[in-house]
Formats: sequence, structure tokens, C-alpha cells
Amino acid sequence: MAIKPVAVIAGIGSGSGTGATAARLLAKEGYAIAPIAHSVDSIKALSDEINAAGGTAASFPISSYSTTDIDSAYARIRAHHQGQPIRVAVYNATHDVWKPFLDITPQDVQGVAQMNLEGAFAFSKNVIQAFQANQVDEKGKRGSLIFTGATASVRGNLTTSAFSAGKHALRALSQSLAKEFGGQNIHVSHAIIDGGILTSSARERRNDTEWEENEDVRLSPVGIAESYLHLIKQPCSAWTWELDSYSSSSILR
Amino acid sequence: MAIKPVAVIAGIGSGSGTGATAARLLAKEGYAIAPIAHSVDSIKALSDEINAAGGTAASFPISSYSTTDIDSAYARIRAHHQGQPIRVAVYNATHDVWKPFLDITPQDVQGVAQMNLEGAFAFSKNVIQAFQANQVDEKGKRGSLIFTGATASVRGNLTTSAFSAGKHALRALSQSLAKEFGGQNIHVSHAIIDGGILTSSARERRNDTEWEENEDVRLSPVGIAESYLHLIKQPCSAWTWELDSYSSSSILR
Amino acid sequence: MAIKPVAVIAGIGSGSGTGATAARLLAKEGYAIAPIAHSVDSIKALSDEINAAGGTAASFPISSYSTTDIDSAYARIRAHHQGQPIRVAVYNATHDVWKPFLDITPQDVQGVAQMNLEGAFAFSKNVIQAFQANQVDEKGKRGSLIFTGATASVRGNLTTSAFSAGKHALRALSQSLAKEFGGQNIHVSHAIIDGGILTSSARERRNDTEWEENEDVRLSPVGIAESYLHLIKQPCSAWTWELDSYSSSSILR
Amino acid sequence: MAIKPVAVIAGIGSGSGTGATAARLLAKEGYAIAPIAHSVDSIKALSDEINAAGGTAASFPISSYSTTDIDSAYARIRAHHQGQPIRVAVYNATHDVWKPFLDITPQDVQGVAQMNLEGAFAFSKNVIQAFQANQVDEKGKRGSLIFTGATASVRGNLTTSAFSAGKHALRALSQSLAKEFGGQNIHVSHAIIDGGILTSSARERRNDTEWEENEDVRLSPVGIAESYLHLIKQPCSAWTWELDSYSSSSILR
Repeated sequence: MAIKPVAVIAGIGSGSGTGATAARLLAKEGYAIAPIAHSVDSIKALSDEINAAGGTAASFPISSYSTTDIDSAYARIRAHHQGQPIRVAVYNATHDVWKPFLDITPQDVQGVAQMNLEGAFAFSKNVIQAFQANQVDEKGKRGSLIFTGATASVRGNLTTSAFSAGKHALRALSQSLAKEFGGQNIHVSHAIIDGGILTSSARERRNDTEWEENEDVRLSPVGIAESYLHLIKQPCSAWTWELDSYSSSSILR
Repeated sequence: MAIKPVAVIAGIGSGSGTGATAARLLAKEGYAIAPIAHSVDSIKALSDEINAAGGTAASFPISSYSTTDIDSAYARIRAHHQGQPIRVAVYNATHDVWKPFLDITPQDVQGVAQMNLEGAFAFSKNVIQAFQANQVDEKGKRGSLIFTGATASVRGNLTTSAFSAGKHALRALSQSLAKEFGGQNIHVSHAIIDGGILTSSARERRNDTEWEENEDVRLSPVGIAESYLHLIKQPCSAWTWELDSYSSSSILR
Repeated sequence: MAIKPVAVIAGIGSGSGTGATAARLLAKEGYAIAPIAHSVDSIKALSDEINAAGGTAASFPISSYSTTDIDSAYARIRAHHQGQPIRVAVYNATHDVWKPFLDITPQDVQGVAQMNLEGAFAFSKNVIQAFQANQVDEKGKRGSLIFTGATASVRGNLTTSAFSAGKHALRALSQSLAKEFGGQNIHVSHAIIDGGILTSSARERRNDTEWEENEDVRLSPVGIAESYLHLIKQPCSAWTWELDSYSSSSILR
Repeated sequence: MAIKPVAVIAGIGSGSGTGATAARLLAKEGYAIAPIAHSVDSIKALSDEINAAGGTAASFPISSYSTTDIDSAYARIRAHHQGQPIRVAVYNATHDVWKPFLDITPQDVQGVAQMNLEGAFAFSKNVIQAFQANQVDEKGKRGSLIFTGATASVRGNLTTSAFSAGKHALRALSQSLAKEFGGQNIHVSHAIIDGGILTSSARERRNDTEWEENEDVRLSPVGIAESYLHLIKQPCSAWTWELDSYSSSSILR
């Protein structure tokens, strides 16, 4: 039986968004899925679902996105998947703070900083070092690292001072990594998601059946996951650093 | 026998670049190819090659990118492909002027303006109207219009005052169209190609075997064409407006 | 009596906007004003006003922004102001086309192309060559060239496909020129004006007294002209290429 | 004797850069200067120099850019300058980390996060609240908040993964604040400094007399400080959010 490559995915949320959907798609593509997230229940449910469907997944819950916790999750992943190369990593973790500026607390800022700086740097360091140990595959690649961004990655706005500060930082990191490690056949991408994604939490928050049922007005995680798979499969002679996604009837930023 | 949808591709160059490679790939995907270009020989050779390989292509040479000539090419395409919907259009035409500013002639500027404004607007108008007449397909789409951009689409630089002015204009057009026609299930994309593409003319100009043979250092039109196909196949719930491509070892802008 | 340096200003409109206001301010600062514009009446009225106020101005009407007409205007300026160095040039000409894409005519596109490519390149070539003939002044500068941009310079949008294509092109030109001629002590700037400017034509179009009287919600040409003067006076050790202006209560893009 | 308005300036460095130069210029313009910085010696020396020259300055050293320390500095400033309105604030603090990605330590990331997120948010909150208490002045303004950015504010690059992540975050914050508080007559700006600034530490690091003596190739803090003063004096009908500065012969990004 062939050795399955590992796809590490940080940020699973409630299991209905970009991270979980990418996990399901990558499991079907033959990757062993290693989800990292806060919510023990969500990643357990996701792993069970993937395993029940004939895929391979094990859970790596963390209590925070501190360097220590991220390093520990990677140590557990390496131990669990000994002999299997990590070929894909998706950093989909997000700390949503949408508030008027004066309502933002030091704790909000700290949460944003931990998710988008401390955790993202720790995650990337583990990934890059894992990729460097890989052979170049037939696509000319040692590995693919994808960051999930948002409109706030390129624009600050009312109520997004903290959220956009974090997302801007993450985008800068992705660009620096793409430049520094492209020459080592490591592909780093950043996906700007322009608009609301249909997740179970968005369903609940909005409580808007029309929005839910109209495929034109909201981004679907399935489409985004397919774009991630496309990035992963790109040959080294035409890599995408950044792509900018919207749903047909949403207002493109 | 099923009715083949039509893919119109403007800008074929010598037949070894992005436009021609996209034409070959789309022919294999079942599109009837309608190349529009200056060079009668190039598009004739390309069409012959596609037809010989079992695909379908007819040539639509133009003598300029004037509104009249573009309108005439579309009239010929519509007549030739009666009953077949135009589902894909790629605007890959480019007017390369790389000169110090004071060496740029009024003719250079006019060439840039014709290619990136007059021709691009005329091309887009024909495409949008053709798409509006289409049914929405199973992906939620009436059609895909893709513009080929470059680093110069987002940055003016030494020797690119004219080239980048044109490419900036084209990018603005693509963004306006994406916003205006997304709600009509028309998908408009812009691809920023960050770096040199391996074409026969680039081979000749550079005369650098190492560059040619090293897949890491130059963009391959095959990879770009695959990204174009990915854009064409995207479901309406996750469309990409812009993507930014580089080869692993080129310097990402 | 000291030799007055010349400030060439293209695009005067009805005489109440950025171009005319900059002309009045620069006249007070000791420049001989050379307005270039379509409207014979507007620039005659402006020149008369400046001369009546103790300044110096002569009119250089043009019938189009073609290379020939721009070259001819510059020939007349050089003849009229023999011995006086051209130290400042402002390209404020604009071709406003705000229409749904399918309503845009080939004439609209041509107008945009002439204003933002042909005319802008011809204007810039005359300016750069005039500046190259100047001595470096005490600020380390041979001359200042300022382009007036808009939100559409950095974003395509509904109804601005043509307008933004032109404005994007102009911005690219300004960036290329800033890079190419900075080393020759020629300062090129681009001002993004984010929002409506209070001009007599805007007054008429909007017919909204509240908008007119509320200084917070619309950009004033006086403030913009002061920023242009600041650019002109910047020492060569801290030049601004681009600045982005808004009025306090307008929505910054 | 008139009540002097207060200008708070965070980030003084060795006293030869943008922050200190802006302090000296604003002191001459009649502001009481309140420098905030790590280095007790630097801000003491700067305050002494300003006071000796007939200006007014008092020092507010901090041991870190934590929320607590920033809040405490503001409490001291408010106590010391009772009855004097804070009208200007400059956030010039920077945490320079230029290293290959794999050499960046968790401490480096934490330093960047504290300077550009925690400290910047705490600083801004104190400033905005102080400005909200001010009367609108004759320029239509309650106060001016300026952030110092860099090329890294808009581009990640080799060796700048941490530095640019922080600078991107700061720029996003400035844009959100400009949008949220413009309507309250609070002017927020972001200055992109494209290139090396002539400071005593840069002198030492480079040890390159030619670079030092050639005004064309390096940015001078005097020119930047003058641009800051221009921003502060802008009327509310034409505010600049962002400006992009370079020296004539440096390579504009």
C-alpha cells in the first residue's frame, strides 16, 4: 500500500467552512488529513467522518495558537505519521473581531496577534522545515502552503481595524515566504475570499434562507476547496501566489 | 453529435505562448477554437494543428485591433459557428513596448492604446453580448472571459511606461467587467503573469539554454493554460477575479 | 525683475476645479501660468483673472489632446516664455465617462485613450525634456510633474470601465516616470482624489445645497492645490510619488 | 500666554530619525512635545535640546509597548499637560527584524506584534479619545494621527517576513481609523517611506560616506518631517490618508 502524504489543516471552525471542506476534498485525493484546531469536538467529528468515508484522518487539538502549542501539535503529527511526508499545509485559522475601534479590547488585539503572527509564524516554520526534507515531486514541488485571506487582507475598514490588521500581517508573511522559498520548490499561496462564506455559523448568524439558497450571492467552501486543490496541483512553472475569489453576485471588493 | 461550445482566443503570437497553448488545451476539452490574431500564418498553423489532432478550429485573422476589425472577426465567428454558443473568451493580445520613455514614439503609444483600450473594449463588448445570450450552465455560468496581464499590470517601471499604461488599463477593464456582469453569471478574470514565459520568441531573444531547460526559472504556458482552464471550470460560488502567477525560482514581484 | 519660472497646467475645465485652483495658487507663488485646455473661454477667463490679480498668465488653447496639438501648445509656450524655465507641470486633463459598459461607445474609448495615453505621453515628453534643460534648484530639483488621479486610478467599478482604464494608464505612466527620472532630479507625483470635488459643474449636476455647504463631505480644490504646492516644494531627499486624498466625511475608498 | 497644544511622538530611536526630527519641527511650530520611547537617554537628550532651543518638551519613557505601559505614558502626559489639548500624534515606533525566515525567533515575532498591534492599538485608542474631546479647529480638525510606514508596509520580501507582517498590520489599522474617524474630523495618515533614511544608526551600519553625503540617494528625516507638518495643516476638505515618499535617486518600490 502506498504511503499517504499528509495534509495539515489549521482552523476547522464548526466543520462546515473552508478548512473542513478542504480536508474532505484532500482526503478523497489521497492525503492523510491532520487537522489542527481549538475545538476538540469539531475536529473529532471531522476526522470520524473522513475515516468513515474511507479516508484517513487523526485529530490534533490545540488549546491556543501559541508557538508552544503549534510546535506540540506538529510533534504529535510527526510522531503519528512517521515516514509519511507532509506535502500540504493550509492555514485557515482566523480570529474574527468585527467591532468599532473603541470597543476593541486588549484581549481582542492579543487574539488577533496570536492567530496571525505568533501562530502563523510557528505553523509556517514547522511546515517549511517539513517541506525542505521532502523530495521534489513530479510537479517540481516539495510542498504547498496555503493561507486563507479575506477582503480585510487588503483593506482596512469600519469595524475591521483588528481583523484587517491581522489579515494584512498574514498576507505579508505569505508573500515573504513565497519569495524566499520558491527557489526551494516550495509553493506558498494566499487566497483572498471576497465575501461571506456559507457555513453553519453564517447560516445561524444571518438566518436568511434566501441568502442560503441563492448560490450566486455567497461563496461556497466547496468552490474554494477546489481552488486550493488546483493550487496544490500547479506545476512549478506556473504557480499562483495570490488569488482573489468572489461569488458571482456578491460585490467584488 | 453534441454542439461544441466556442472558445475565442485573441493574441496567438508565434504559436508557442499562452494564447496558443490555451487554444490547444481547450480544444482537447471539447471547445471549438476561434483564434483571432494578426498573423495569418500563425493562426492557420495553429488551427491546422488542432484539427489534425482531432479538435476543431477555424482561423479569424484581423489586420488590426480596431473596433471595426474586431467586430468583423466576431461577425465571421458568429456566422461560422452558427448555433454554437461562445462560452469562453481569452484576451491575450499584447503590444510589447519596452523602451526608455524618451524613445517611445506616438506610434508606440497608439499601438498600446489600440491593443489595450480600443481592441479590448470591442472584444469585451462582443463577448459580453454573446454570453448574455447563453443559458446558465451547470456551473452557474454563462461564460468566462479571461485577460492576460503581467507584472506591468500593477507596476510601472523603467522601460515600461507605455507597456504598463496599457496593461493597467486592461486590468481596470477586467475589474469593472467582473463587478458589472458577475450578477449576470458572467465570470471575468485577470491573470498576472509575473515573469518571463517560455515561448519561441523568448527562446530566440534570450538564447540561453540554461533558462530554457530549467523549469524552475521561467513560466511555462502549459501551467498558465491549466490555470485558465481551472478558472473556466470554477463554480459560480467561488470565482477568482485575479490570480498572480510566477515560476518557483523567478523573483515574484 | 526676476525671471518667473513657468507652470504649465493642462485641464482647466470650467475654471473652478483642481487645475484652475492650482493655477491661481501657483500664480501667487510667483509662477507664470501657462494653462492648456479645450475651452478657449475658460482659460481666457482664468488668465484674465490671474493677470488682473497681479499675476502672470497667457492662454494656450488646444483643439484636442493629440500629440500634434500638445506639441504645438508647448511650442507656443516656449516661444511666449523664452528664457523662462518650465519648472512645474500639472496634468489635470480628464475625460469623464461614467456609463454602464454596454453603453460605452468607441468614441468614448477613443476620448479616454487620447486623454490618458496619447495626450499624457505627449505632455510628459515635452515636460521631461524641458526639465532636463533646467538647472537643479536649491531643493535639488529640476522640475515637478503632477498627475491628477481618482479612486478610479486604483479600482475599476460599475460604470467606470472606460474612465478607470484611462486613469489606471495615467497612474502607470506616472510611476514609470518617477522611477526613470528621479535620478535626474525630476519629481513626478500622482494624486489620488478619493471623492467628489466641489466644482461649479458638480454643483450643477448634484444640485444639493447641503453637499455644497458641508466642508466635511466634499473635497475642496483649494486643499488639493495646497497639497500640489507642497509636492512642488519637497526637497529631493523626501519626495512623494503618490498621495491619496479624501474629505473628512467622504467614504475613503 | 497661549496654551500650547501637545504633540505626542512615539518612537525616537537614537534621536536622529523621523520621530526626533518631527519633534524638533513641531516644537518650532508651537507644539509642546511629548516623546514616548524606550530609550530614556534619547528622549531626555531630545527634550533638553528642544527646551534649550526655546521649545517645550517633557519626556515619557516606557519600558515596553504593552497596553499597560502605553496607557501609563498617556496618563502621565495628561497629568503633565493638564488643560492642553493633544492635537497631534505620530506613531513612529518600529521593531526592525530583517532576517531569513528560519532565523526569526518567537521573541522577534512577539516584538513585532507588540510594536505594531498591541502598542499601536493602545496608542491609537488614547489618541482618538483625546482628539474626540477637542474642539474642531479652524482647519476643520480635532487632531492628526500619523503612522510611519515603509516599503514593507505594502510588500513582503526576503528577510522581511516579520517586519513586513508588522508594518502591514499597522497600515491596515491606519486605514480603518481614517475611515471610522474621518467623520469626526479626526485625520489619520500613513506615510510609506520607500528607502533608507539618513540616521546616525544607518550611518554607522552602512559606513558609506558617499551614501551619507549624496542627498539624492537617501531619504532625509527633515523632508519627511516637513511632509508630516503638511499633513497636520491640511484642511478637512482635502486630507491625505497615504503618501509614498522616496529620495530622488533611490529606487522607488
